[in-house]
Amino acid sequence: MEKVRIALLGLGNVGKGVWNILNTNREAIIKRAGYDIEIAKILVRDKNKARDVEVPQELVTTDAEEIFNDDSIKIIVEVMGGLQPAKDYILRAIKERKHVVTANKLLIATNGKEIFEAAEKNEVIVNFEASVAGGIPVIHGINESLTANKIEEVIGIINGTTNYILTKMTLEGMDFEDALKEAQEKGYAEADPTSDIESYDAAYKLAILTTLAFETNVDVDSIYREGITRITSKDIEYAKELGYVIKLLAIVKEVDGKLELRVHPTMIPSIHPLANVNDSFNAIFIKGNAVGDLMLYGRGAGELPTGSAVVGDIISVLRNDGDRASIVTSRYEDKEIAPMDNIDAKYYLRITVKDMPGVLGEIATIFGQEQVSIASFIQKARREDKGLVSIVIVTHDTLEGRINKSLEKINDLDIIKKVENVIRIEKLGLK
Amino acid sequence: MEKVRIALLGLGNVGKGVWNILNTNREAIIKRAGYDIEIAKILVRDKNKARDVEVPQELVTTDAEEIFNDDSIKIIVEVMGGLQPAKDYILRAIKERKHVVTANKLLIATNGKEIFEAAEKNEVIVNFEASVAGGIPVIHGINESLTANKIEEVIGIINGTTNYILTKMTLEGMDFEDALKEAQEKGYAEADPTSDIESYDAAYKLAILTTLAFETNVDVDSIYREGITRITSKDIEYAKELGYVIKLLAIVKEVDGKLELRVHPTMIPSIHPLANVNDSFNAIFIKGNAVGDLMLYGRGAGELPTGSAVVGDIISVLRNDGDRASIVTSRYEDKEIAPMDNIDAKYYLRITVKDMPGVLGEIATIFGQEQVSIASFIQKARREDKGLVSIVIVTHDTLEGRINKSLEKINDLDIIKKVENVIRIEKLGLK
Repeated sequence: MEKVRIALLGLGNVGKGVWNILNTNREAIIKRAGYDIEIAKILVRDKNKARDVEVPQELVTTDAEEIFNDDSIKIIVEVMGGLQPAKDYILRAIKERKHVVTANKLLIATNGKEIFEAAEKNEVIVNFEASVAGGIPVIHGINESLTANKIEEVIGIINGTTNYILTKMTLEGMDFEDALKEAQEKGYAEADPTSDIESYDAAYKLAILTTLAFETNVDVDSIYREGITRITSKDIEYAKELGYVIKLLAIVKEVDGKLELRVHPTMIPSIHPLANVNDSFNAIFIKGNAVGDLMLYGRGAGELPTGSAVVGDIISVLRNDGDRASIVTSRYEDKEIAPMDNIDAKYYLRITVKDMPGVLGEIATIFGQEQVSIASFIQKARREDKGLVSIVIVTHDTLEGRINKSLEKINDLDIIKKVENVIRIEKLGLK
Repeated sequence: MEKVRIALLGLGNVGKGVWNILNTNREAIIKRAGYDIEIAKILVRDKNKARDVEVPQELVTTDAEEIFNDDSIKIIVEVMGGLQPAKDYILRAIKERKHVVTANKLLIATNGKEIFEAAEKNEVIVNFEASVAGGIPVIHGINESLTANKIEEVIGIINGTTNYILTKMTLEGMDFEDALKEAQEKGYAEADPTSDIESYDAAYKLAILTTLAFETNVDVDSIYREGITRITSKDIEYAKELGYVIKLLAIVKEVDGKLELRVHPTMIPSIHPLANVNDSFNAIFIKGNAVGDLMLYGRGAGELPTGSAVVGDIISVLRNDGDRASIVTSRYEDKEIAPMDNIDAKYYLRITVKDMPGVLGEIATIFGQEQVSIASFIQKARREDKGLVSIVIVTHDTLEGRINKSLEKINDLDIIKKVENVIRIEKLGLK
């Protein structure tokens, strides 16, 4: 069987996963790819670093040029992550007419257009299934399987760390800090968890999904982004009472020709399939105008699940004999982003007010002026030490602009101590 | 843009779906396929039949030869269903070097090998995503996305009719007959529901999934098959008490190099993602040695979801310029089927016994002799009119052969009125 030589850029977790899968499943992979895949070179920063994977020392190099200048290497597998030097390496590989498989969400989200255009020009493939949701074939799904559809919505739980934290808060009553600490101890969260808990990670992935599903170029900065740090055990508990679960959702919806593009904690009905996606699992819910509702569920991270996507992408290049365009951004039309004020949803508001008569009336009057209709209005625990009470308000469907105007006025009221939290309750019909 | 002429064989529900999708999403599909797709001919049995889809009369023909002899027609879309004449038409099309897209589960399950080998020989593509689970891209998923994996298990809810019936029984307390009647009224079940409720339909789909996931040829008759007709409201209720939900599962697992291959009602933990797949939705749970646990969820039937898969397959042929082998059965190795006696599971048994002392002891003794260990033993409702009581037994993990031997002996006991039902409780760990 003909041999194909490939090179790994990086030998971290994902690189190890790729190495292990190619060895463990070698026979089956060769049959399916139609080629014997040989890892010819592995680029690392430090040759002497201790690694819990055994690779022959002669494959390891710190010199990228060795790889780019080797014409016998046909595919570059970029699993180093980060913007640079990954970007330069990938563009260089494309120029040398090598195919590229990458797991780099940051790079594809922010520089995808440039990379895909270079690939088109040089007639090579750039595959990137592993860049979103690890082993879940969502990119393949949108790009290859759902091509008959106009996609109307993509709603994803695409950050495992925050889903783990919210699951612990929901099922075990933990508070945010404890759940975060446990996530860090288990290796689900970084020492600096900002990228996860402030939703940067999910926003990068949403940018990629949106690019594919809506055939548009997306500026990551145009994505509305809220983290989960303001979610308290109280919110979780009240959500449960109301029949909801709180999840960090990455959402893109086409409404009246514009894209709603946002990542934020969301209340969803506890019977919805996304509500039962727990721990560090990911899931992506897709609505297409032909296929209807579709959900893909699985492991969004981890060396083997992510390696599964990377190796699948390598096989895909080989099966097509490199003879297929990956993503043709040149035919994309830029879609307009809808302003957040136009979001149409129900809203959950938790407000601390002074415990005195007339409070509800004052708040209700303001909502009435802004045409926000209230679905329920519940007085919760009394904080007797300070003469304060906590109230929870759930609105009917309304525009976010109206909520914001109402809150401006409500914040000015003497009786208001603090608007503690505002959480969108997403419309999620199963059709 | 270059035009590609295709022909539909059949204009039933799926045919209508294909027609409507190709028209509604025309612009997007042309861009993605790289070709303008023209439906040049539609084969029907009766030109004058009233149809709720408007197609130009000049496209419709009753003469298949018109299609096969037209060299300008590059793709045949078989959406007529049934074994014949679908099989002859597909083989004829392949011989004429036309690519084939089919939605025909019966044909692919029983004659797939012959069809794929003909396709390989004639260098054409046969795509069949729509043959299993409608719009859910499970075939694409196994064949294209999960190629890095050794697949260890595929467990599916792949019959919408029975899932609808079991959902009604579970969530609304209906009995089987009423739920079936409602399914028939809503068009989910046929007037003769045998194929669905006796699990023939699910067995065909399981045969196809097994062929792909385990790269083996499967004889449909080698699939162990039980229907849902023996499931009563009582079983549903007791399952709930025990923390389970009853689903009709199509299961294939590789255990010690042999395939367990079976379709039967199964109790699964109510917190498992498959447990919350309700109504006529389908879902397929796949365990791969790299990707871990993966689930695909969506609409398993209906003209648009199924049409979504068919049109996706057409686009896939065009994007590859027909230049790709579909399924290469010639490299498959036949895997042995494990005998049902070797199944390792927990078992739920509902038995009607005479209401007298010593009954439990006699039954427990027999189980003990066969080394079946009992996890719980519950006396349920007393049927006072006849001096009978209903008991429910749940075993620990054991071999099915031991259960069968125990039941033979138990059936001989004087105190036994009837073993009402035996339901497997499937091991479904989330890893």
